[in-house]
Amino acid sequence: MPPALDPQAAVVLFSGGQDSTTCLAWALARYAKVLTVTIDYGQRHRIELYAAKRIAAAAGVPHAVVPCDSFTALGGNSLTANVAVAAAVEGALPNSFVPGRNLVFLTLAAAFAWQRGITNLVTGVCQTDYSGYPDCRAATMTALEAALRAGLDSPITIHTPLMHLTKAETVLMLRDLGRLDWLALSHTCYNGSVPPCGTCPACLLRAKGFAAAGVADPLVG
Amino acid sequence: MPPALDPQAAVVLFSGGQDSTTCLAWALARYAKVLTVTIDYGQRHRIELYAAKRIAAAAGVPHAVVPCDSFTALGGNSLTANVAVAAAVEGALPNSFVPGRNLVFLTLAAAFAWQRGITNLVTGVCQTDYSGYPDCRAATMTALEAALRAGLDSPITIHTPLMHLTKAETVLMLRDLGRLDWLALSHTCYNGSVPPCGTCPACLLRAKGFAAAGVADPLVG
Repeated sequence: MPPALDPQAAVVLFSGGQDSTTCLAWALARYAKVLTVTIDYGQRHRIELYAAKRIAAAAGVPHAVVPCDSFTALGGNSLTANVAVAAAVEGALPNSFVPGRNLVFLTLAAAFAWQRGITNLVTGVCQTDYSGYPDCRAATMTALEAALRAGLDSPITIHTPLMHLTKAETVLMLRDLGRLDWLALSHTCYNGSVPPCGTCPACLLRAKGFAAAGVADPLVG
Repeated sequence: MPPALDPQAAVVLFSGGQDSTTCLAWALARYAKVLTVTIDYGQRHRIELYAAKRIAAAAGVPHAVVPCDSFTALGGNSLTANVAVAAAVEGALPNSFVPGRNLVFLTLAAAFAWQRGITNLVTGVCQTDYSGYPDCRAATMTALEAALRAGLDSPITIHTPLMHLTKAETVLMLRDLGRLDWLALSHTCYNGSVPPCGTCPACLLRAKGFAAAGVADPLVG
């Protein structure tokens, strides 16, 4: 049997990147108890896991790492295999798309939450800048929430505070929450470079957001 | 990019048990190309993986094993941990419930199918005898299908040929498909016993189904 429900608690699906770091700050402003879950899916860039751990420590919240070796086994994408990241092409599905990944990760976070009586999930998916990923869309999150509610028999809510924000607005949200300094510990670059490569789609998107917000990126500065 | 769609192909989520074996026979009667996928989620009873492999070989279909180490890490249930299986209690969630498991397995099967241009998924979930598992209900499958369609941007259909059948009707379906002999290779027992323990909920359900169908179980006989 699951434990009694705790409506004052939330689980943040936490990659250690800019978006989920902003989600963590958002959740801490709203819930009495916040837990972070990072999925270790065999990402080439182990620095992501390290960034997640450091930011959770800075925030003073528990950090769980849940392994998922399925996607490495399924193969065929640039985030788990040694494949060069292609430049973004308007309208095309980028080769960094891992089919089913967000769905599985959120379901694992929901299972983790279910075991602790938590029904609030927070994820940094964003439709505005979704880079062609169908699993980042609001419609997908609404459908998945319904599937999780039915499949776990629990009143789960998937919170997506960044869904309709631009990258600039996400930067400003984190600044307004007083946590911009956490981004000095974050990781975004698809190529795993430290300092960031500055040329992959993820770096370009991040730089564009900071520029538009008129704020310096503490990771780069 | 995903390959071109092949409407004449199906992926069967295949555990090597009675229900998914019946689904395999059902799929072979309907599709020109059938692939089986078994999730290795760290089940205590490795005989399940062996049964799946042998039945797929008997059927002459490809058999892929996709690992998923997440649920062992999440812990807390009788199918992956060394916990005695409790007798079924009417209305209660059995301790063999693994939150999110079916949702993740079907999503992994969908990702596997997506990579091959396949949109038909077949699973042996059954509402009639669902033992209190909310992730076996028709409503859950409908919601998950919608989430997969949105998240993978693909016209996926989850086929559940056993959803509204009794165990007896499932036995008769497999018999009518001429594949009852495959069940001599199958595995059902929650306690992993060979021959089956005959007393766990899964064994009791299987025995009841064969008795009601008036058919001898080739695994027991």
